[in-house]
Amino acid sequence: MSNKISVSILGATGSVGQKFIELLIDHPWFEIASLCASEKSTGKKYSEAANWFQPTPLPDYIGDMIVQSCEPSVKGRIAFSGLDSEVAGPIEERFASAGYAVISNSKNHRMDFDVPLLIPEVNAKQLELVRQQKFGSGMIVTNPNCSTVGLVMALKPLVDNFGVEEVSVVTMQALSGAGYPGVSSLDILDNVIPFISGEEAKMETEPLKILGVPIKISAQCNRVAVVDGHTESIAVKLSKSARVEEIIEAWKTFRAEPQTLQLPTAPAHPICYFKEDNFPQPRKHRMLEHGMVVSIGRLRPCPIMDWKFTVLSHNTIRGAAGGAILNAELLVKNGFIT
Amino acid sequence: MSNKISVSILGATGSVGQKFIELLIDHPWFEIASLCASEKSTGKKYSEAANWFQPTPLPDYIGDMIVQSCEPSVKGRIAFSGLDSEVAGPIEERFASAGYAVISNSKNHRMDFDVPLLIPEVNAKQLELVRQQKFGSGMIVTNPNCSTVGLVMALKPLVDNFGVEEVSVVTMQALSGAGYPGVSSLDILDNVIPFISGEEAKMETEPLKILGVPIKISAQCNRVAVVDGHTESIAVKLSKSARVEEIIEAWKTFRAEPQTLQLPTAPAHPICYFKEDNFPQPRKHRMLEHGMVVSIGRLRPCPIMDWKFTVLSHNTIRGAAGGAILNAELLVKNGFIT
Amino acid sequence: MSNKISVSILGATGSVGQKFIELLIDHPWFEIASLCASEKSTGKKYSEAANWFQPTPLPDYIGDMIVQSCEPSVKGRIAFSGLDSEVAGPIEERFASAGYAVISNSKNHRMDFDVPLLIPEVNAKQLELVRQQKFGSGMIVTNPNCSTVGLVMALKPLVDNFGVEEVSVVTMQALSGAGYPGVSSLDILDNVIPFISGEEAKMETEPLKILGVPIKISAQCNRVAVVDGHTESIAVKLSKSARVEEIIEAWKTFRAEPQTLQLPTAPAHPICYFKEDNFPQPRKHRMLEHGMVVSIGRLRPCPIMDWKFTVLSHNTIRGAAGGAILNAELLVKNGFIT
Amino acid sequence: MSNKISVSILGATGSVGQKFIELLIDHPWFEIASLCASEKSTGKKYSEAANWFQPTPLPDYIGDMIVQSCEPSVKGRIAFSGLDSEVAGPIEERFASAGYAVISNSKNHRMDFDVPLLIPEVNAKQLELVRQQKFGSGMIVTNPNCSTVGLVMALKPLVDNFGVEEVSVVTMQALSGAGYPGVSSLDILDNVIPFISGEEAKMETEPLKILGVPIKISAQCNRVAVVDGHTESIAVKLSKSARVEEIIEAWKTFRAEPQTLQLPTAPAHPICYFKEDNFPQPRKHRMLEHGMVVSIGRLRPCPIMDWKFTVLSHNTIRGAAGGAILNAELLVKNGFIT
Repeated sequence: MSNKISVSILGATGSVGQKFIELLIDHPWFEIASLCASEKSTGKKYSEAANWFQPTPLPDYIGDMIVQSCEPSVKGRIAFSGLDSEVAGPIEERFASAGYAVISNSKNHRMDFDVPLLIPEVNAKQLELVRQQKFGSGMIVTNPNCSTVGLVMALKPLVDNFGVEEVSVVTMQALSGAGYPGVSSLDILDNVIPFISGEEAKMETEPLKILGVPIKISAQCNRVAVVDGHTESIAVKLSKSARVEEIIEAWKTFRAEPQTLQLPTAPAHPICYFKEDNFPQPRKHRMLEHGMVVSIGRLRPCPIMDWKFTVLSHNTIRGAAGGAILNAELLVKNGFIT
Repeated sequence: MSNKISVSILGATGSVGQKFIELLIDHPWFEIASLCASEKSTGKKYSEAANWFQPTPLPDYIGDMIVQSCEPSVKGRIAFSGLDSEVAGPIEERFASAGYAVISNSKNHRMDFDVPLLIPEVNAKQLELVRQQKFGSGMIVTNPNCSTVGLVMALKPLVDNFGVEEVSVVTMQALSGAGYPGVSSLDILDNVIPFISGEEAKMETEPLKILGVPIKISAQCNRVAVVDGHTESIAVKLSKSARVEEIIEAWKTFRAEPQTLQLPTAPAHPICYFKEDNFPQPRKHRMLEHGMVVSIGRLRPCPIMDWKFTVLSHNTIRGAAGGAILNAELLVKNGFIT
Repeated sequence: MSNKISVSILGATGSVGQKFIELLIDHPWFEIASLCASEKSTGKKYSEAANWFQPTPLPDYIGDMIVQSCEPSVKGRIAFSGLDSEVAGPIEERFASAGYAVISNSKNHRMDFDVPLLIPEVNAKQLELVRQQKFGSGMIVTNPNCSTVGLVMALKPLVDNFGVEEVSVVTMQALSGAGYPGVSSLDILDNVIPFISGEEAKMETEPLKILGVPIKISAQCNRVAVVDGHTESIAVKLSKSARVEEIIEAWKTFRAEPQTLQLPTAPAHPICYFKEDNFPQPRKHRMLEHGMVVSIGRLRPCPIMDWKFTVLSHNTIRGAAGGAILNAELLVKNGFIT
Repeated sequence: MSNKISVSILGATGSVGQKFIELLIDHPWFEIASLCASEKSTGKKYSEAANWFQPTPLPDYIGDMIVQSCEPSVKGRIAFSGLDSEVAGPIEERFASAGYAVISNSKNHRMDFDVPLLIPEVNAKQLELVRQQKFGSGMIVTNPNCSTVGLVMALKPLVDNFGVEEVSVVTMQALSGAGYPGVSSLDILDNVIPFISGEEAKMETEPLKILGVPIKISAQCNRVAVVDGHTESIAVKLSKSARVEEIIEAWKTFRAEPQTLQLPTAPAHPICYFKEDNFPQPRKHRMLEHGMVVSIGRLRPCPIMDWKFTVLSHNTIRGAAGGAILNAELLVKNGFIT
């Protein structure tokens, strides 16, 4: 009998749900106990309910699991939620009330005052907010929007070392961020879509809650023909002057709780800085350390702000399922889940 | 016998050279008299020397022309130059000295004090600089870098009506901007390249010469998997406050010399503003008015600067060959070429 | 007051419906009188009901038309149908019964014994079938599946000159053939889908009705990341021996009723043969003669059959809306529509 | 001190050379001892000489190795050759004469009577040809063209169980097959290229030498916008009748020497048959068992031949570097390399 913690995946057939499964298949601490989805999938074998499109083949024992409805009677101590935000809110609350640790990738509860909006490398302390929740042994913990994660990870060492006052970010976001079927091929082949609904507002507010410091942020979000990996052209105004080498050093030496605690999903080096002019690039660097690294390159002075640079991170791993699993690992290691 | 002005195309086999040919085939004023290219093409029929990849089929009479070397003895009153910048400098000077009106798309002479860097809708008056040149009846006139054109066209009505102090621009540039063969398919499929050599410097300096006003500009240039059409996410700081409707009105009503003079290649409405959230897009809007329109959308307040918006323009038409032909038309209409 | 024939477009908001509009905007004989679509669009302005994604901008007078339901009370002598096959059958019959000449792009009535399955260059005589229909002054005329058209056009001169016994065809089909939103970008970027539902059966049967001769056909259909233009790798077994030059000559000199009658939408040269090794290609050749040409290349002996070659045709123009309009022109010119 | 067999990589900076490095980094038997390339790379650190574009990061110890010229004085018992065929011939002979086991991916010696053209699952016995070579302790062993491998692997169980008389194959080949920079992005985005120089001849002849039986083969080769993974639409005529289930069973149960010998690079199940209509697909299945599986799907009767189906295999792993390493493993296990 396994000693692993049993987990449930909510929204298991969707894009993020599939990524949860892929990343949890060989997880040393967690074990998939139940797969939940909407009514049209309920009662079917997972292999029939889902259009599995991950690069890793679906193991038979997962494919043979019967999809259940999103009711907190399903087996599992942790509920990883990849639910669509249109339904996630109340379902996640029901699971938390029933005693589950809900680790959510949905936006619904991110900005609730007593819900941690967590990037373990950045604000592990925000976990304490859980104690203010009214769910008994249950809880809700969220991770930020996929485009926020790369930005905030890149900013954190700057905030700590030099202070950050203003951030301008323009994104070139991957297709998988829109879910499946998501963006029509006719809309993106040989094209750019200069708009992603709601995305800019998230990028301009979530970092404030995560970093806990006041920063003026302006975001412009674009969709490009990339499968996975959000690329961001960023400019920042710092509180005090810095030299190129100091900034690069701050990024390269950045470590935090996940590294200290050696959490299974934590990358050894959370930030990778490239000295090559034309790096980072999504196809080449999104999978560094299994997709958990944030890649940075092209640091150079900005004629308007102080510095500009390019950031890349894997939107469905570091920016969604992988980040959520890292959150769960942090909860376990800190005794919030027993 | 035709009364059209005979023209020569320098660098006729290249990407811009081909576009010159395509746009000049049915031109009401100009007639292709000679095609010039590097030694490896000289003496061959054009159809054999060039890997023609334009959407319009190559007419037989062009395909049968013999490619000549870039010597100013070839037939033609105007020389349209799509030469590579590694060789363009001295060749263009030789043609100008020999009495040709050299209309260049290359960067070599753009910043020379006595060479117009021209966008006819923006700085037609800069044509007068030609009178300071020492080429006798010959001259050199240049158009700006392909990514500069859309930016400057969008800024011009803002400069005129509200004043512009700072501009931050992040580009998502098309593949055709890199020439042929240019970018390897292995470098751009499912990818973004966050670097284009020399491009940011051009975008930060050329607008100053064209607009004739001091503006602080910061550019970040990216290559994306789009065939034609540069998309730019722009933020601006204005000298005086403006309302959304005023700015849009300034763009929509913008007209200049090319429209007044009804130049053959001039678009009736040089700027098209889209009210749809997700417009403009390269595949859908790059060919408006035969590729000569600059499309704008998504005007909204910026938390850091004053306003942000998206600009799209066709990089090899408005941003290269089409712009150069418009320059030539302006020269003719103003009596500089007779 | 115009003397043009008024036409209605059924399924006007869809992919084929939009193409009908684009191609009819400046048509010399036809005039768009009404736009019909499903309930969710009815009563809205067309510009609001449709997600217009054609390269030509939508004219205001079309955008301002109110979308009507698909009832045969709408204005129009001809009804161009781009309806989804799930609903097309009975609606088209109601329109025919009400006296409309229904020119359909849907599959529903294609194989009916008394319905012409028409490619005007190939089987104009099949128009006579209309006289057997029971719709009074109304009628239904269909064009074949988009992937059938290129194949049959390429075969016709072979059938006439050498006889064709067997045809093996493997397609690489464009995304627009699947309608909008159609194929998810996540399913086709950096990918091939080796299956298109129902497509192979259509390609194996429709040519028999169109060509009127018994041919054994085997089709394998694939979807590739191309916006417009189906490419087909074809091998044929002929009834009698032929030389390369004879076959090419048969293609190049092929003309038929649409050319003789000089129908407005007819290409001057319905088949273009390329001698270049690597032609035809969808992006370079799909728009020859406004998308109505079928391009062929790479004729060479086949070790198993007799000959193999590559065919390309524009799937939403020659293979759908353009073909249907050509059908209507043929009907008018032959006095079937007055 | 390692007991691994030291190996040299010829053409180490190229596309196949990089793949050799990536696959050998953690190899249990082999150890990279030297990296050889053309003059322009010689003397440089590998990280500077090569434009590394593999998904796995380049380890520092490889990046720091100094690139040497392709002279048989370099360290190594085995020489893996990813050399361009324009230079591969004599270099490989020199290495063989000097005692190296040359495992070549180049076409130059493939059809030599005494050189094994090897797919270990198909014709391991052909290794014996080596004994006829005149290189002393040295030898040359080749693997077939990347598009041949998937075809032959799919045919082998059919040949063994039912006999194969005719094969018609149309390929949709990946960009990485053309090397780097290879295909220009302007030639393949939103496009198909219906021609790959020399490819059809290889596919029509190499299988005969590998399978050792007379088969009539007709190949048509196309390039599509896919990074890795060749897809092939195949039709076959068998010597005796077979049922669907028998054929699928023959594929699914297919095992050979590499599986029996448990060679490190051998896939446990060399052929994977998919029952889903729309599988296999390059992006989803190319990496099965680290890219060494040949995926098959869509088996169905053919109106002309007997059966048709779709095959997918990874062109730079199973079809190049991975196949070559499997060849070397077979040589070692059989005592040809000691």
